[in-house]
Amino acid sequence: MTHYVSTMLETYPKDLGAVDRDALAACIEACFECAQTCTACADACLAEDMVAELNGCISINLDCADVCAATGRVLTRRTGDNAEATRALVGACRAACRACAEECESHAQMHKHCRVCAEACRRCEQACTDLLATLG
Amino acid sequence: MTHYVSTMLETYPKDLGAVDRDALAACIEACFECAQTCTACADACLAEDMVAELNGCISINLDCADVCAATGRVLTRRTGDNAEATRALVGACRAACRACAEECESHAQMHKHCRVCAEACRRCEQACTDLLATLG
Amino acid sequence: MTHYVSTMLETYPKDLGAVDRDALAACIEACFECAQTCTACADACLAEDMVAELNGCISINLDCADVCAATGRVLTRRTGDNAEATRALVGACRAACRACAEECESHAQMHKHCRVCAEACRRCEQACTDLLATLG
Amino acid sequence: MTHYVSTMLETYPKDLGAVDRDALAACIEACFECAQTCTACADACLAEDMVAELNGCISINLDCADVCAATGRVLTRRTGDNAEATRALVGACRAACRACAEECESHAQMHKHCRVCAEACRRCEQACTDLLATLG
Repeated sequence: MTHYVSTMLETYPKDLGAVDRDALAACIEACFECAQTCTACADACLAEDMVAELNGCISINLDCADVCAATGRVLTRRTGDNAEATRALVGACRAACRACAEECESHAQMHKHCRVCAEACRRCEQACTDLLATLG
Repeated sequence: MTHYVSTMLETYPKDLGAVDRDALAACIEACFECAQTCTACADACLAEDMVAELNGCISINLDCADVCAATGRVLTRRTGDNAEATRALVGACRAACRACAEECESHAQMHKHCRVCAEACRRCEQACTDLLATLG
Repeated sequence: MTHYVSTMLETYPKDLGAVDRDALAACIEACFECAQTCTACADACLAEDMVAELNGCISINLDCADVCAATGRVLTRRTGDNAEATRALVGACRAACRACAEECESHAQMHKHCRVCAEACRRCEQACTDLLATLG
Repeated sequence: MTHYVSTMLETYPKDLGAVDRDALAACIEACFECAQTCTACADACLAEDMVAELNGCISINLDCADVCAATGRVLTRRTGDNAEATRALVGACRAACRACAEECESHAQMHKHCRVCAEACRRCEQACTDLLATLG
């Protein structure tokens, strides 16, 4: 996926402005990846025999998938001056990823999908932190 | 739409907790409504002869639609303890609605779709503010 | 919600073409409504003590919510000539709504949220059928 | 991204059934990739001086992004028996990708973002075709 994210940023016809292009590409990629992984983890939790103990995890997975998907799209758009709203959204995405990572980590010993999902969430949380640092 | 939003909240099988049910239903409804209206406004702007002057408006419309859609879904989910991440997201939604309302208001004299869209954004911004006030 | 859907269609600056405006507005509204209701039903199912018997219902609810959300957005866009792809999508939306309605109807005696959700799905299925009939 | 898509499929706790796992993983990945690329292409078109000639392309890009995002999520879910609706959706996704590829190819000489986007759309169209062939 990185290939397309970076290539599309290179083909943008106007100046990308002060944004750190690598941090931006990494965050876009992490958001799409985390949205997919959280959707998969929610579904894998649903298929577990002990699903009744995972209902909170499923709900937080679904929330994280929605927030990451929206953030990945908003970050992909470079046209228009929407800096303040974008910063608030990346902050909300970081919070969603952190909450989902913590929840999945608590099931990681028992469920491999939660272990992998926590890794994707922590990666996206870090990418949001890194991007926020460059946004000033 | 209100009918279904409220009815579904009534059928939730567990306790909804301390949340103000009316503020919650109003915010969910406003988010879905604003997502639709902003999608329509972006498309109407695209069809204007002077689209080149509206490209920033289109981009902010699309951002607002994505954030509202994600927020409407997250607020719809009552299972799982995701309060901190939810609060951050509602704040980001309020910021997206405010930015989109300001942009659309600057075109409202010229374009009726921007006038209607600004109204939907202000309504959703207010619903986010009201809900945040009850979330403590 | 109808208010905004219809009003935005009225403010579209170009000719809407041969589409039946009432059938279009009804289908857009039903799609957004069904996306919200299915998201709520999945979450209510998650909160049931017998969630293990509802995991298929939850998954189909989530699928239906995603398809309806995408269809509602695509139908909202009137710019660009995308008739064949749009028709295929409305057909897929009808299939998703029918599958979700059938699943929810099988739990309707036991769970009120499934009863309400089946109603929203049948309504959206019908709106898709009506719109497809006018699309030729 | 492939890494997570495949790994999550491996961690699914139940039998994945008769589906071809490689075709499924390839299609999920292509859908998320195409959703991101089409979102970027719409935004790059918006930033072009000749945006007025690209409004149809932007609209079809946005449609394709929405359909691919929904299809990527639905394919990620393996719980629940939703085969008929899933097949209809993958068919609609193929139609959306084909329409977007054709539109972008007509601008590919002039705009590099359309050239890259057409490639991502053709890749996703093919992945849908391959997956449909294995779904029977």
